[in-house]
Amino acid sequence: MSGNTIGTLFRVTTWGESHGPAVGAVIDGCPPRLDLSAADIQKELDRRRPGGLPSASPRREEDRVEILSGVFEGKTTGTPISLLIRNRDADGSAYDGLRNLFRPGHGDFSYQAKYGIRDHRGGGRASGRETAGRVAAGAIARKIIAEAGITVSAWTRELGGIIARPLSLATAETSPLCCPNPEAEERMVKRLAEARTAGDTLGGIVEIVVRGCPPGLGEPVFSKMDADLAAALMGIGTVKGVEIGAGFAASRMTGSACNDPITPKGFRTNHAGGILAGITNGSEIVIRAACKPIPSIARPQETIDLQGRPAVVTIGGRHDASVIPRIIPVCEAMVAIVLADHLLRQRAIGR
Amino acid sequence: MSGNTIGTLFRVTTWGESHGPAVGAVIDGCPPRLDLSAADIQKELDRRRPGGLPSASPRREEDRVEILSGVFEGKTTGTPISLLIRNRDADGSAYDGLRNLFRPGHGDFSYQAKYGIRDHRGGGRASGRETAGRVAAGAIARKIIAEAGITVSAWTRELGGIIARPLSLATAETSPLCCPNPEAEERMVKRLAEARTAGDTLGGIVEIVVRGCPPGLGEPVFSKMDADLAAALMGIGTVKGVEIGAGFAASRMTGSACNDPITPKGFRTNHAGGILAGITNGSEIVIRAACKPIPSIARPQETIDLQGRPAVVTIGGRHDASVIPRIIPVCEAMVAIVLADHLLRQRAIGR
Amino acid sequence: MSGNTIGTLFRVTTWGESHGPAVGAVIDGCPPRLDLSAADIQKELDRRRPGGLPSASPRREEDRVEILSGVFEGKTTGTPISLLIRNRDADGSAYDGLRNLFRPGHGDFSYQAKYGIRDHRGGGRASGRETAGRVAAGAIARKIIAEAGITVSAWTRELGGIIARPLSLATAETSPLCCPNPEAEERMVKRLAEARTAGDTLGGIVEIVVRGCPPGLGEPVFSKMDADLAAALMGIGTVKGVEIGAGFAASRMTGSACNDPITPKGFRTNHAGGILAGITNGSEIVIRAACKPIPSIARPQETIDLQGRPAVVTIGGRHDASVIPRIIPVCEAMVAIVLADHLLRQRAIGR
Amino acid sequence: MSGNTIGTLFRVTTWGESHGPAVGAVIDGCPPRLDLSAADIQKELDRRRPGGLPSASPRREEDRVEILSGVFEGKTTGTPISLLIRNRDADGSAYDGLRNLFRPGHGDFSYQAKYGIRDHRGGGRASGRETAGRVAAGAIARKIIAEAGITVSAWTRELGGIIARPLSLATAETSPLCCPNPEAEERMVKRLAEARTAGDTLGGIVEIVVRGCPPGLGEPVFSKMDADLAAALMGIGTVKGVEIGAGFAASRMTGSACNDPITPKGFRTNHAGGILAGITNGSEIVIRAACKPIPSIARPQETIDLQGRPAVVTIGGRHDASVIPRIIPVCEAMVAIVLADHLLRQRAIGR
Repeated sequence: MSGNTIGTLFRVTTWGESHGPAVGAVIDGCPPRLDLSAADIQKELDRRRPGGLPSASPRREEDRVEILSGVFEGKTTGTPISLLIRNRDADGSAYDGLRNLFRPGHGDFSYQAKYGIRDHRGGGRASGRETAGRVAAGAIARKIIAEAGITVSAWTRELGGIIARPLSLATAETSPLCCPNPEAEERMVKRLAEARTAGDTLGGIVEIVVRGCPPGLGEPVFSKMDADLAAALMGIGTVKGVEIGAGFAASRMTGSACNDPITPKGFRTNHAGGILAGITNGSEIVIRAACKPIPSIARPQETIDLQGRPAVVTIGGRHDASVIPRIIPVCEAMVAIVLADHLLRQRAIGR
Repeated sequence: MSGNTIGTLFRVTTWGESHGPAVGAVIDGCPPRLDLSAADIQKELDRRRPGGLPSASPRREEDRVEILSGVFEGKTTGTPISLLIRNRDADGSAYDGLRNLFRPGHGDFSYQAKYGIRDHRGGGRASGRETAGRVAAGAIARKIIAEAGITVSAWTRELGGIIARPLSLATAETSPLCCPNPEAEERMVKRLAEARTAGDTLGGIVEIVVRGCPPGLGEPVFSKMDADLAAALMGIGTVKGVEIGAGFAASRMTGSACNDPITPKGFRTNHAGGILAGITNGSEIVIRAACKPIPSIARPQETIDLQGRPAVVTIGGRHDASVIPRIIPVCEAMVAIVLADHLLRQRAIGR
Repeated sequence: MSGNTIGTLFRVTTWGESHGPAVGAVIDGCPPRLDLSAADIQKELDRRRPGGLPSASPRREEDRVEILSGVFEGKTTGTPISLLIRNRDADGSAYDGLRNLFRPGHGDFSYQAKYGIRDHRGGGRASGRETAGRVAAGAIARKIIAEAGITVSAWTRELGGIIARPLSLATAETSPLCCPNPEAEERMVKRLAEARTAGDTLGGIVEIVVRGCPPGLGEPVFSKMDADLAAALMGIGTVKGVEIGAGFAASRMTGSACNDPITPKGFRTNHAGGILAGITNGSEIVIRAACKPIPSIARPQETIDLQGRPAVVTIGGRHDASVIPRIIPVCEAMVAIVLADHLLRQRAIGR
Repeated sequence: MSGNTIGTLFRVTTWGESHGPAVGAVIDGCPPRLDLSAADIQKELDRRRPGGLPSASPRREEDRVEILSGVFEGKTTGTPISLLIRNRDADGSAYDGLRNLFRPGHGDFSYQAKYGIRDHRGGGRASGRETAGRVAAGAIARKIIAEAGITVSAWTRELGGIIARPLSLATAETSPLCCPNPEAEERMVKRLAEARTAGDTLGGIVEIVVRGCPPGLGEPVFSKMDADLAAALMGIGTVKGVEIGAGFAASRMTGSACNDPITPKGFRTNHAGGILAGITNGSEIVIRAACKPIPSIARPQETIDLQGRPAVVTIGGRHDASVIPRIIPVCEAMVAIVLADHLLRQRAIGR
């Protein structure tokens, strides 16, 4: 992976800043003759759009995607697919007060250190808005893996410290917070309201499950399936931890408890989370991503200015109280992108 | 990252199987005119070698590294550095009984599914022995980053569920278990002995700390420092989870508690773990890797054979009771490799 | 290089089809704080636009470039620069008769064989129009190398078999055919008119010269400067041969004649064309690219249809009589892109 | 392509200096379950070894290849294949006089400029000896493409200005100079003897033909088959020009003469050299590489020393009078490597 491109054969490049003219993605290596329309992509984009959810930002974007290349008469041609999403509601002037200040928890300081310049409006490139390009690309990845019978689903495992014991996937799909447990969701909604009132924000944990994945995907030893999934998820701005299968809990198990016995019908347990030695084993892939609270809080914060002098920053503007649930389609997209790439790579070796 | 190569400018390719003639690494992109001797590399290799530690395997390897290219009269020339480590004590016959069986928790099943063939002796490519190449390459990476004032250290944060409250780094350096707390270490040694007696194994958590890292390293948005570190660590066979800074705990914090206030002297706290928006911020980089228990246990286990029939496998041979502490120089090596690559990449943009 | 992306650190991805909505490029890895405006890019695009030149197509495109990202208040930010050029005059219906036929000399047959589908309108992705994205990206590359004192110029060395003995670079710059010799140009214009009357087309040879290049650029052994330049030029649709310095003539020289003697003031001759062992030596880089005649001729041609049946194809539409001079800014752009990439790579090793 | 690695899926990394302990290659991405023995590779290495040919160097190397990994019980496993060739006859002291001098026509000057250091013995990394690793890797590539019915052959098209009108491939195969015309060969042998007597060297042109290549290989627009082949050949130290099909002659043809008419039985002519728009069209691929005379001549030459002072260099040691025919298996290897990579890439898109 290098800079703004991810993948070896299915390659996604995203571009764009929060308050520039547009964001977008170029997808190279998509197999030819796949049915693809703007509606296929729009459907996923709509899932990540700010909406009426309890945690949502009031910013309104239509997020209309335009396919500029790579599709001919409704089918992919094998050439690069360029996707464009205009930033229609990009009022950058709200950020004028932040031009010379570093917001704690954001990339302001580190971008300035790296590049000696930054587009301060809405976080520029480091904005969550960049993920629109990922979700758009992920919609194409999903179509590729769906042809091989693979699906990716994610839900809210935890929000603001409230753990949701999953009842069913169906419950999560119809839940505004993608929560698989209505009782937990009720408490989460209440906690979000409290945080918003307090001018504060909450974090949470997303669980992603991949079903139907054949054994054999993943390239040892530096592009293992778990390594690539970890990078793909840790590369989402909000994510501070990733675990596969039993994850951190595995570190407290004995070998005899942790090993998944193998039977003619498959693995008896799934502490491995579907991945052994970096290669899928045919079980469900189970991953969890820990998301920090959104750093944009409505409280004065201690910081410094561009000249290194002490300052206080107060962030106005429009912000969510939690990245959950909007981060969920982003997590799904990143997992789908990694899977699509490895599916193509495995085809190349003829299995 | 692709297959057996990691890095964009500082590129490491490892090769070799547990019971083949040798293992090794090719390092491409090492800057010229760096002092380098076999002894520099040997020193690191000796740290990961099976020894007399409480958790150690009785396998004896000299692990003598030979530099085959890229060094002239004691200095690197800028050309690829080829490192060779012969497998001297590679008795493959001990594995004959495993030729047609899949060991639970190992890559046997997934490698067979991927390639339709596998070198069953000692896990073949999926063996921990492959990491000798990583540690050797990491020794070179360490020298590169040391010139920029960057050091990487790791220690045992947890073993078999026993948490070590760190007293000092010096404590860990002289500890056989790399444990920063003598009292915890005593309990760990005892727990390891119990596990060994029970024919079982233990997992643990390694903490890696990077000191002296300048701000500005990391390439958004798909080769962020945290994403690359996560991939590098998750790509170690034993690792099932990675977290940066506050990690999973961040998901339970509020934004006002999690954000690190910025002062003229630096960040007041370090919940970010030294990385903001994927770019280093000048604070210490703090990462934790969760290691599962070694899957080679001395107990009969339920499995299947190559034909899919039920079977019982009992693993003989020589195995550690825990990957800790031998995994520690491997973790350090992977982190050093990622840092060296990003250091060179940052130089290219002239900062 | 992989698919539609070229470069290791300065990375250019182009996308778009001749008669789709737009063409464009994403440039990743551009150093920050470089002055950049749409006008900088437009200037280069205007050079490759169909104009009133003797060889020109009557197709009219405004070719207005829009910068969608990566530039903030007139300066690059280090993030990806997305460039968009709408296809305004894209009348695809003229190509309806070609939907089921393969035009000789074009990529129709090979694209169909590769992808099992193709956008037949104007050659789709294989159209010369794709090079607009390259020229736009090249404009940025030129700015990067200009800061290091490097310039790239190209001119017509030969057209339709007429050789131009160069008088001066200035002559070529003001010549409609980029021809450095007015007498030769007069004959070229006449030959082009004859070809056009005959419904035929002509090829030629472009010479590219790089001035001010420091010694030391190029990465042995598979990303040598000459190897990368050869790939960059051979990857232009029309190019069938590339030579550096003495080129093919070197194969008929003796070693004593071909070797360039070295003096305290530099190399006495330049048969090497500025590159030794794949690394620049400080002399001018001299490259020649042989361009075949444009395959779109106004004569009936023998071919087959999609079903493999014999057919006759007659190509209507708007076409140039020669790729020269429009290919010249494309050649320059590709050379500039390669140089910019190697300049950044060399910085990484600290020289 | 980056540095010392070539390929996207079939990836070859070479390492080693002329007078270091060894040279070698690591091949990553070789499909599993391919029969492979050291003898398969040795056969190709023996073809490039200095022998009793009229043009040959008296240096004697056994060039015994050792397979260190990636092969189990005679079959590839899908893991990296490490190949080692010891430098047995590496007498570096003969080069002591060259430590501070730059040999004209060699990489001495440019390597010094790039790295600020160089292994001066026998050209170090820039030595032709490095190509042993390429030929070894090419032997594996040949086996991969052979399974798809593809073969690569090369012969001497021209040597010292003497053109060989090809009689038959069989003639070239049994010829000491790989010359397809006995009468021309006789004159070449004489010309070589004259050059050797004069302390001089000769260049020549190699023609490479690929038979049995299916249509559809090559990735537009920056990894086209012709672009990748051009880079692979131009990246051989001796090559100064590359042309495909009609090549430079195409620049003097009209479109009506150059276009290859398409018939139900295939292309009527092959001016395209088997490649259209960068993708193979099913015809033979025909490429020519122009090789300069070997720069190591037995005459005093004008040069400078490390301090930039005028000097005279006289090269002793053991050298060929021409790179032909020893360069021929190297050309074949590079072409085979590119084809193997594209064959795997094409499989990935499911065609």
